[in-house]
Amino acid sequence: MSGIRLGLVGVGKIARDQHFPSIEATDGIALAAAASRSASVDGIANFTSLTEMLSGTEIDAVGLCTPPQVRYALALEALKAGRHVLLEKPPGATLSEVEDLVEVAREKGVTLFATWHSRFAPAVEPAWDWLAKRSVRRAVITWKEDVRRWHPGQEWIWEPGGLGVFDPGINALSIATHILPTTFFLTGSTLSFPENRQAPIAAKLAFTDANGLDLTADFDWRQEGPQTWDIVVETEDGGSLELSEGGKKLTLDGKPVIDEPDAEYRGIYRHFVDLVGSGTSDVDIAPLRHVADAFMLGRRETVDAFHEEPI
Amino acid sequence: MSGIRLGLVGVGKIARDQHFPSIEATDGIALAAAASRSASVDGIANFTSLTEMLSGTEIDAVGLCTPPQVRYALALEALKAGRHVLLEKPPGATLSEVEDLVEVAREKGVTLFATWHSRFAPAVEPAWDWLAKRSVRRAVITWKEDVRRWHPGQEWIWEPGGLGVFDPGINALSIATHILPTTFFLTGSTLSFPENRQAPIAAKLAFTDANGLDLTADFDWRQEGPQTWDIVVETEDGGSLELSEGGKKLTLDGKPVIDEPDAEYRGIYRHFVDLVGSGTSDVDIAPLRHVADAFMLGRRETVDAFHEEPI
Repeated sequence: MSGIRLGLVGVGKIARDQHFPSIEATDGIALAAAASRSASVDGIANFTSLTEMLSGTEIDAVGLCTPPQVRYALALEALKAGRHVLLEKPPGATLSEVEDLVEVAREKGVTLFATWHSRFAPAVEPAWDWLAKRSVRRAVITWKEDVRRWHPGQEWIWEPGGLGVFDPGINALSIATHILPTTFFLTGSTLSFPENRQAPIAAKLAFTDANGLDLTADFDWRQEGPQTWDIVVETEDGGSLELSEGGKKLTLDGKPVIDEPDAEYRGIYRHFVDLVGSGTSDVDIAPLRHVADAFMLGRRETVDAFHEEPI
Repeated sequence: MSGIRLGLVGVGKIARDQHFPSIEATDGIALAAAASRSASVDGIANFTSLTEMLSGTEIDAVGLCTPPQVRYALALEALKAGRHVLLEKPPGATLSEVEDLVEVAREKGVTLFATWHSRFAPAVEPAWDWLAKRSVRRAVITWKEDVRRWHPGQEWIWEPGGLGVFDPGINALSIATHILPTTFFLTGSTLSFPENRQAPIAAKLAFTDANGLDLTADFDWRQEGPQTWDIVVETEDGGSLELSEGGKKLTLDGKPVIDEPDAEYRGIYRHFVDLVGSGTSDVDIAPLRHVADAFMLGRRETVDAFHEEPI
């Protein structure tokens, strides 16, 4: 086995759908072990906890695919054991714990990578490149999907810290903070909480920047039928950019220029191999900071109860 | 007039009660102008806006005593005009806008000072000094006051961004983040929203750190009778510290060691003069970050409506 020997904690849907095939496809890294309370993976060493995995097999890095509410303790344990750490998004349940992890990684001299998978969608870098030379006047984010379809039975997303509709919404924010050539901040938000839930099912956000940018975001988890993950940008010089299907398609000034299949997690693992190789970390807290700002500044409204099975 | 010529924006209760006498008592700075939509101050130049003040008189620095929801635009205008800026707490309505101001101050080469007045209470530095050599096992923050007594008629504190009970609670957090010799982060919070308000009237917070610190905070705005602003700390070596009356009194291992009158704002202005003199900034976002974390991770509960006049 050559390259980085990775142990993955949390063998759920995202691990099997995305992480396993992407690790397999990436040079310089290989899946050596998995830790899960209930699941096991064929062909590698299996453990029921991170602690057992760290002492029971030789790994260089740990990938965390667990819910954000328990991510800190695991990340800290791995970093303190001198392992590089890759965090699924969001990097933690709070901003403060992520700051602490950055500090620990620096002290231990290991790589910490807070991943934002949507930033690796095929049209995101070309969008960044096109916008880098322009000023933005207006941008509209529309991120509407059906929670029953994408998060079946995931009760933790409705608990405090689960973030509700910000779980997909933070993907949009991770793209926007990357491609928009300005530092923006929230001016107002409305959060819609189902009367039986502790996390919002919808959110409307307004942002601006030092130059009066008009940026709005509309997140909704009640979208049946066609699903929408679009960012539309108007530039000061009259140009237009449309990034759609979560970053797979790009249209510039009305002309389609990119339409490629998703390979986000391959991009993540390629970047992780580079970070470990160069001895650097990559932790951009901005998307989670905007979410925290939206909760802090949010006007709360109560909406219909949400039930997993439609009544 | 020698030293820093200061223009103050927002002539309300905090400006008259605290800022004016403290500026008067501090060497190296003098109040040169005030901007307010409605109030005026005897003996100095008065303006109805920051824009008018910047063009109408010569000032070196701007102090902002306006509500946090409008602080960013004013701070940005002053910084871009090359003036040093002093921000009342909290430094902004969002974390992201404060990050942006830090960047602008750096670019312009001027001082930005995000004040946390409670850090200048007389017993805070001695508490920091005593704790610096110790490990903390447990700490309890109790911050309970009567909102009707301390914030009469201040409707903005109940609006989104007004922070509700975190307006005083952030004072406790500004002390705790300063004196506790560890980086802590939130593990859970419960926020109590009056059924007719958009900001919490009470909050219970739990924090920990990498070593299992047990830190709790109990904020309540419904406290009639005696008011409580206490931080009690137990150290690993069996020592105890009690910081009470918001930082005016200090008791170490049962022995009262400090009991002094408040002079917080004099400390603020002395520090501001030092910062300007040395060409540095002081912006610690940690207290506001904990508040944002508490909103993001908070379990919300609805409690009795709050009315300014008891029914």
